[in-house]
Amino acid sequence: MTTTFFEVATRGKGLYEITAKVERAVREAACGDGVATVFVCHTSASLVVFENADPTAARDLERYFERLVPEDGEGYEHTLEGPDDMTSHIRMALTRTSEVVPVSRGRLVLGTWQGLYLFEHRRAAHTRRVAVNVTGNSLTAAG
Amino acid sequence: MTTTFFEVATRGKGLYEITAKVERAVREAACGDGVATVFVCHTSASLVVFENADPTAARDLERYFERLVPEDGEGYEHTLEGPDDMTSHIRMALTRTSEVVPVSRGRLVLGTWQGLYLFEHRRAAHTRRVAVNVTGNSLTAAG
Amino acid sequence: MTTTFFEVATRGKGLYEITAKVERAVREAACGDGVATVFVCHTSASLVVFENADPTAARDLERYFERLVPEDGEGYEHTLEGPDDMTSHIRMALTRTSEVVPVSRGRLVLGTWQGLYLFEHRRAAHTRRVAVNVTGNSLTAAG
Repeated sequence: MTTTFFEVATRGKGLYEITAKVERAVREAACGDGVATVFVCHTSASLVVFENADPTAARDLERYFERLVPEDGEGYEHTLEGPDDMTSHIRMALTRTSEVVPVSRGRLVLGTWQGLYLFEHRRAAHTRRVAVNVTGNSLTAAG
Repeated sequence: MTTTFFEVATRGKGLYEITAKVERAVREAACGDGVATVFVCHTSASLVVFENADPTAARDLERYFERLVPEDGEGYEHTLEGPDDMTSHIRMALTRTSEVVPVSRGRLVLGTWQGLYLFEHRRAAHTRRVAVNVTGNSLTAAG
Repeated sequence: MTTTFFEVATRGKGLYEITAKVERAVREAACGDGVATVFVCHTSASLVVFENADPTAARDLERYFERLVPEDGEGYEHTLEGPDDMTSHIRMALTRTSEVVPVSRGRLVLGTWQGLYLFEHRRAAHTRRVAVNVTGNSLTAAG
């Protein structure tokens, strides 16, 4: 039932794959059957499980969010840190802060095309902190 | 801390209730107090907890998503599998891939009007794979 | 692996902070490392992790949802309980019903600006039921 942390260095808006880092946490916990809970400790970045094969899918998602939560013309009050301040919080609320992935026989049960991504909503580079808790039977006990 | 799987045969876009299948996994795990983690292993279908009494609510939700993420006029790049390809990924990202429901005295703590649903975003029929992990005290121990 | 419940008295649409109530559940469970699963037992209220410092952020979020899921002009069928009936279910589906926060050394791993909020989507006052499950090592054992 270990909770560990890792950091993601972002270089502006977009998706950053973190699947390998979460898989490593599962391996280090030697978990057989259980769950991996991923949590991003910020309110202007979020998590999504997303298509991991075709980079056009990520680009389309990013453009969709630019239209859905536009930086201009909405009359936000909360803009102290710039036009991408309030939009970041909204985009985070529309996606996810925690994602929980079951573990079976020592592996995340991700489908073929699923990857775990940190979704950066700010224009500037940031260092993002992600927590991973792995809870489950030990790999040996699960046989 | 068992992780099991079940399949859902979808017949095009819409909500498909999976509450009974998740309840069965909880019963079979003989869980007293704990959590059931539900995870859909796809990027073009998602999960929602939704109103389970009035079918007009599901229809309104489906129509809302047609307007919010329209298949035409948005200029998506990722359309290899048709006009419902990219829209499926976006609708998935706006809803949920994992849903975690606490278990109390052997029962999911769902409210009176809550059901668990798989939300199919593709037009064609699909077989969708769902993972359920149940972690908790045994029903006997929880007494 | 206790599942407990608390209530939130809402006074119409908006965000209601529940961080302290979830922290109390973690303390009472004497959890060292583990996860706290928060679940709202309703289909017209939801959960979000949100910015906890500046009240303008919450106001902007509420106004954004009024525009994204407007009460008038969308032709909803499911309006038996009024114009905020169907919109409540949609706003819930676009945010979260469950939120899972890892616990480390007895504390939720929330970032500096993160708070847990119940998001009320109905105009009238309601009593909302929230379940919290805490699963993990005991604080002593983790010590």
